[in-house]
Amino acid sequence: MIMKHNFNAGPSILPQQAIDATIDALRDFNNSGLSIAEISHRSAGWDEAMDECSVLWKDLLSIPDGYEVLFLHGGASQQFLMAPYNLLQTRAAYLDTGVWATKAIEAARYYGEVQVIASGKDSNYSVIPEYAIPADVDYFHFTSNNTIFGTEILADPDSPVNMVSDMSSDILSRPVNVSRYAMIYGGAQKNAGTAGLAFVIIKKDILGKVSRDIPKFFDYRTHIKDKSMYNTPPVIPIFMMKETLKWLKGIGGVAEINRRNQAKADCLYGEIDRNPVFRGTAAVKNRSRMNVCFVLDEKYAGKENDFMELTKKYGITGIKGHRSVGGFRASLYNALPLTSVEVLVDCMKEFEKMV
Amino acid sequence: MIMKHNFNAGPSILPQQAIDATIDALRDFNNSGLSIAEISHRSAGWDEAMDECSVLWKDLLSIPDGYEVLFLHGGASQQFLMAPYNLLQTRAAYLDTGVWATKAIEAARYYGEVQVIASGKDSNYSVIPEYAIPADVDYFHFTSNNTIFGTEILADPDSPVNMVSDMSSDILSRPVNVSRYAMIYGGAQKNAGTAGLAFVIIKKDILGKVSRDIPKFFDYRTHIKDKSMYNTPPVIPIFMMKETLKWLKGIGGVAEINRRNQAKADCLYGEIDRNPVFRGTAAVKNRSRMNVCFVLDEKYAGKENDFMELTKKYGITGIKGHRSVGGFRASLYNALPLTSVEVLVDCMKEFEKMV
Repeated sequence: MIMKHNFNAGPSILPQQAIDATIDALRDFNNSGLSIAEISHRSAGWDEAMDECSVLWKDLLSIPDGYEVLFLHGGASQQFLMAPYNLLQTRAAYLDTGVWATKAIEAARYYGEVQVIASGKDSNYSVIPEYAIPADVDYFHFTSNNTIFGTEILADPDSPVNMVSDMSSDILSRPVNVSRYAMIYGGAQKNAGTAGLAFVIIKKDILGKVSRDIPKFFDYRTHIKDKSMYNTPPVIPIFMMKETLKWLKGIGGVAEINRRNQAKADCLYGEIDRNPVFRGTAAVKNRSRMNVCFVLDEKYAGKENDFMELTKKYGITGIKGHRSVGGFRASLYNALPLTSVEVLVDCMKEFEKMV
Repeated sequence: MIMKHNFNAGPSILPQQAIDATIDALRDFNNSGLSIAEISHRSAGWDEAMDECSVLWKDLLSIPDGYEVLFLHGGASQQFLMAPYNLLQTRAAYLDTGVWATKAIEAARYYGEVQVIASGKDSNYSVIPEYAIPADVDYFHFTSNNTIFGTEILADPDSPVNMVSDMSSDILSRPVNVSRYAMIYGGAQKNAGTAGLAFVIIKKDILGKVSRDIPKFFDYRTHIKDKSMYNTPPVIPIFMMKETLKWLKGIGGVAEINRRNQAKADCLYGEIDRNPVFRGTAAVKNRSRMNVCFVLDEKYAGKENDFMELTKKYGITGIKGHRSVGGFRASLYNALPLTSVEVLVDCMKEFEKMV
């Protein structure tokens, strides 16, 4: 079998070191004689694993005092509901930058008024629209990276109100000024581990300000109090997150991964801009470093399957674009090595000669 | 290292075959060249894995037409909320048999009136109280097995209204007449796999009857429509569930496991009743086959740690009782072999000679 270059949009490539550590733990967790799949979450060693995971988050993102990191079930979709449940009293401002932002908006409407301050819908979300954050809302919510459309907000906005961000697909890919945010959340299954787990970085003093009666399980304060163990935590996904973060710390943390991610994005966007057969779909100024969306130039329309066939020869997988954009999408998450991007570029060059 | 006998209350012992299959899939899922931790849930082979898991459930429990099996994030705690969100219009009847039943009751109160038709609280939940199910409620809810107190409702009740049961800790341990239930749910982490996943067996025609506007993510119809893939599913826990069910089918299904579970329970309760040093805490008629709670006879009070020390010599783990009952708890879930129970009985006999 040839080596696979995994460009999946998520779940997606993870550090081999994290996979190997999980295999070891499935055989024997922490010298307990038991598999991690069958240990009690109240048993010796598990508390330490959860704590280590939390410390790694705080260390990697320089999370200031006053914030808590939670590990919750349900992925980002559940946070679309939990965030407004806990924070939306009257009105919140949302930026509409794509499918996931739209889902977050739909969810927030169950709990209060949603002011969509700008939308990229008219451009099929190829541009992050200009926006101004109002000062009279409970919070401002945005999606930092739009997996489907390949756009990203790379700089932390400066907000006059509490700022909440879904960073599912670019968390840990670069430094973030956490102190600007009231809450950062996301599904783990891109840069932070495998599917079945959400992370929530939350400023504790923003809680308890809404007047509604929040069911205990949906109240962030419950999970803060019980250190993410109010109910049985997703043990294997949390372990895998810890190992993924450990790998990231080992290679030099977010400063180093930021450099690597820039190099990967430069390499691929460089080829897209040079190669007359391809063109990028996202506005240049809003290009995502995580998800690179591109199509064949109109002259080569209809040859998409030929390119897909060629990518297979190179061991490239997960490159098909989302149906709402078409074409191709190469996801360059943290664990993807530059060599995989170089292989894709070689493949694009060969295709250029073929057509 | 001596072999471990895993009596944990959950997460707990799983079939080695399911653990081994997960290790294999972490190395290479379905000959894809990728780890199961890094495949897209939209990739070839994953749909088939989800379908196989669903077919195994339907096969093992003879689930009739008109029901759907869902695989959701969040464990049973989230279902404590989702069940009333979807089913409670005016009033529901709940049976209070312990800590988890109490949590389900608390959660349901956010959505309507809860009539607690009987409670075992006065006996510290050592007895399942007598109860009559009213005919004028939206549904009747009960917890089939009480992990903490070691009581179990082994026969399917006959209900004049829709019946909902939390079977987290005894699902798949015996035949169940699913047609009597509107909904059966639970966390996976006892007989159905590892932590981070809930199963929901639901009769489709009971949905859509309440007047409230249910957020899409909390509406069972969303997850039925999207075959449990409305959002990214917990891939590894679902895979492990499938492998656990495959093992169960391979040994002869619920008929065979029912026989084995009875033999294990008879063996341990037999020793508790024979050995003057120990006594069971649950009413004999309500004894759980999954969680056997016992304490030292008053004559031997204070010697609990001596027994705990002795169990270690035998490789016994997870035997400490829950703080609300004290003493010891041996959980005899499906994957625990009779030999482990026999080792515990040997240990109890040795302790009898020692004291």
